[in-house]
Amino acid sequence: MKQFLDLEDIDNVDELIKNAITLKSNPFSHKELGKNKSIGLLFFNSSLRTRLSTQKAAQNLGMEVMILNLNSDGWALEFEDGSIMNAGTAEHIKEAAAVISQYVDIIALRAFPSLTDKKKDEEELIIKSFKEHASVPVVNMESATAHPLQALTDAITISEFKQKERPKVVLTWAPHPRALPHAVPNSFAKMMQMIDVDFVITHPEGYELNPKITGETPIIYDQEEALKDADFVYAKNWSSYNDYGQIKSTDESWMVTLDKIKAAKFMHCLPVRRNVIVADEVLDSEQSLVIEQANNRTYAAQAVLKDILEGK
Amino acid sequence: MKQFLDLEDIDNVDELIKNAITLKSNPFSHKELGKNKSIGLLFFNSSLRTRLSTQKAAQNLGMEVMILNLNSDGWALEFEDGSIMNAGTAEHIKEAAAVISQYVDIIALRAFPSLTDKKKDEEELIIKSFKEHASVPVVNMESATAHPLQALTDAITISEFKQKERPKVVLTWAPHPRALPHAVPNSFAKMMQMIDVDFVITHPEGYELNPKITGETPIIYDQEEALKDADFVYAKNWSSYNDYGQIKSTDESWMVTLDKIKAAKFMHCLPVRRNVIVADEVLDSEQSLVIEQANNRTYAAQAVLKDILEGK
Amino acid sequence: MKQFLDLEDIDNVDELIKNAITLKSNPFSHKELGKNKSIGLLFFNSSLRTRLSTQKAAQNLGMEVMILNLNSDGWALEFEDGSIMNAGTAEHIKEAAAVISQYVDIIALRAFPSLTDKKKDEEELIIKSFKEHASVPVVNMESATAHPLQALTDAITISEFKQKERPKVVLTWAPHPRALPHAVPNSFAKMMQMIDVDFVITHPEGYELNPKITGETPIIYDQEEALKDADFVYAKNWSSYNDYGQIKSTDESWMVTLDKIKAAKFMHCLPVRRNVIVADEVLDSEQSLVIEQANNRTYAAQAVLKDILEGK
Repeated sequence: MKQFLDLEDIDNVDELIKNAITLKSNPFSHKELGKNKSIGLLFFNSSLRTRLSTQKAAQNLGMEVMILNLNSDGWALEFEDGSIMNAGTAEHIKEAAAVISQYVDIIALRAFPSLTDKKKDEEELIIKSFKEHASVPVVNMESATAHPLQALTDAITISEFKQKERPKVVLTWAPHPRALPHAVPNSFAKMMQMIDVDFVITHPEGYELNPKITGETPIIYDQEEALKDADFVYAKNWSSYNDYGQIKSTDESWMVTLDKIKAAKFMHCLPVRRNVIVADEVLDSEQSLVIEQANNRTYAAQAVLKDILEGK
Repeated sequence: MKQFLDLEDIDNVDELIKNAITLKSNPFSHKELGKNKSIGLLFFNSSLRTRLSTQKAAQNLGMEVMILNLNSDGWALEFEDGSIMNAGTAEHIKEAAAVISQYVDIIALRAFPSLTDKKKDEEELIIKSFKEHASVPVVNMESATAHPLQALTDAITISEFKQKERPKVVLTWAPHPRALPHAVPNSFAKMMQMIDVDFVITHPEGYELNPKITGETPIIYDQEEALKDADFVYAKNWSSYNDYGQIKSTDESWMVTLDKIKAAKFMHCLPVRRNVIVADEVLDSEQSLVIEQANNRTYAAQAVLKDILEGK
Repeated sequence: MKQFLDLEDIDNVDELIKNAITLKSNPFSHKELGKNKSIGLLFFNSSLRTRLSTQKAAQNLGMEVMILNLNSDGWALEFEDGSIMNAGTAEHIKEAAAVISQYVDIIALRAFPSLTDKKKDEEELIIKSFKEHASVPVVNMESATAHPLQALTDAITISEFKQKERPKVVLTWAPHPRALPHAVPNSFAKMMQMIDVDFVITHPEGYELNPKITGETPIIYDQEEALKDADFVYAKNWSSYNDYGQIKSTDESWMVTLDKIKAAKFMHCLPVRRNVIVADEVLDSEQSLVIEQANNRTYAAQAVLKDILEGK
């Protein structure tokens, strides 16, 4: 693997999932691989799981980890080509990416969308600029439109817990008080089309995701119908894509309950708002996989970093 | 040791003090013990000594250290059971503690009191919630009502510097412009009742600490009388416990001076406000142990972490 | 080397440059040297290059790195001797420096000038106070008036790229929208007087640097004349020294262009404002050494840290 900007960078997803599960059973098996190598974790936004799990993944591989909170430790970056930098930005991405590449062997990056400028968000300016100007591989730790490490984690978790060859997986929208990005549902929807599952999406009308991403996936507006016979229910809120970044509904009746999911396993990327997205009874039940998902974040990242280190 | 929430978690305090002093003379003797283990240092509040000394202690044991400033790196946590999380908090402690437990082998935590809600502070909601929902041992790096790593440090320091079998130790209140927590005096008072010292407390009337903690310890309102024949004088400010979190007095006459302590050793947990808590002449004299106390923070933490790692 | 507060701490600059270049070709050759040693990186101000390169330098030498953002992780420090600390500052430098010395083997420090109080800035209170009260070596990661690690980097880069025994090096002032410190031009000017180069400085009238630092160096107010036959052009903005911290001119005609520098190599410490300090055409050309300079930051720091570790 030369980079991990999005799921398209995966050559063979089934093999990558298998590698991650193997690493999980023996996390320190490749500790020599990362010796004298370092990774820079660059955060434009807050992070808990991603920060700790990517750090752990790198350390499991024997790498040194350097963390930079770009908004507080550093200064504002300029991304515009040819701009006359006499205002707020102090350093151009051309220099920043090239310079950071001198100090680390891999750059991992988190940069959320504006949710106000759809075109700009979809251009993925920050991560694409880093890719363009960095001389080392770049890893996406959640960008404006994609969270591929989370989607890989989710695929690993489904692979571990599925009890039939081709399980039914339902992605259901759920209410939330704030406007949230599309990165997680986008990447989950893409990943479900890459592995062998029966996948449907359910949400209130007006919450359609980017049709280029959902592709042929059935969209069912009736949550009850969609959830029928589900093996895995993945809940997530997102803001409107068509009416970009807007909250069209906070309809509480979309909250996930045990009654709705029956015997299905419950998944969520976390952080999750209890009794808004999903009822306590689900999260506190044996059916919830959310903690195992969080655990698998380490091995998803570790499998990706291992591939990148070996690809050098 | 299974955890270090408070001094009650110590089985044998004299042995633990001895272990710390042994580690001090050979800090890297157990560097294999922490191999492939990691500790998460979680800060809800500022820290200098605790941050660096706990990090160093873990590194001396060969552990990896991950630091999370929860207020800036992460987001607000919910601690209420069953709450409908449609307001400010983005993640429930149930998930946060369980998730962080996936990434680290020990969680160390700092969370100061409100000093406005006595009942809530005494419930020690944050550290107790982490203990309840974490699946790995939890270490207290100063909570609302206790700072057991500091108290262990203080006991180590007294053990190193005492010149008689049973020295006289005086905890004296001293003035300070801001309202300070009770964690340090609480834990110090508890520790002094666990080791073989002649212990008295002195403070202006109205500054009584929690009587459940001070127990049978003599409280003397006359500082001069209390300090008589002291071998160790431990100065500390705290706000009123009865009139919770209030400043009842900033009486400068309580400032510690050489004249008051005579030949006694001087102790303070730091940071200390010079010429408010204690005169320059004391801190700059040979009698001051404050830097050695700070040094011992490393070995107190290291002895505790070593015990926890071995107890696994 | 006992410390690296400024360039005067270098015994033999040519040897240090040679050591750095040797380390660059084999960065992990001394990984045993820093075993069980640690460095504390203390930041009063933002940092990207210095933070990452110094961290990498220490890790290359096998050291543990502890980072403290003093303004956010800690609290305000008091530097005044004998002060009655009943206001904003919570800890005196006497304790802070002595305490941090208990936890690390080297303290590295960044503290920018006020640019409003010339006398105070020139006293270098922060770094000098650390030096005075720390019991371990102190390294300057940019202070009010000096940035010796940058100057060492620049000397290394000139040494690598020079094509004649005694190249002509020009330091040119360039416009910038904000008032910038003198640390980089000061240290660069000092360094150029320590190595075998033909050195001139050019800037608009009113931008004279401290004459004690520029010494006998020719000051030429005509940029074109100064740049004639230059082998290396080092661009940098600084605010007025005489009219301390003021912006006297933002004359765009001082921006560096290809036309001006002809075949000379271009240098800048970064971050650089494109098309304000220097035109895109220069930075994007083969003549630009700015990324290599950034790379050399690691080896400058590593050569200094190695010397300090060996000097113990």
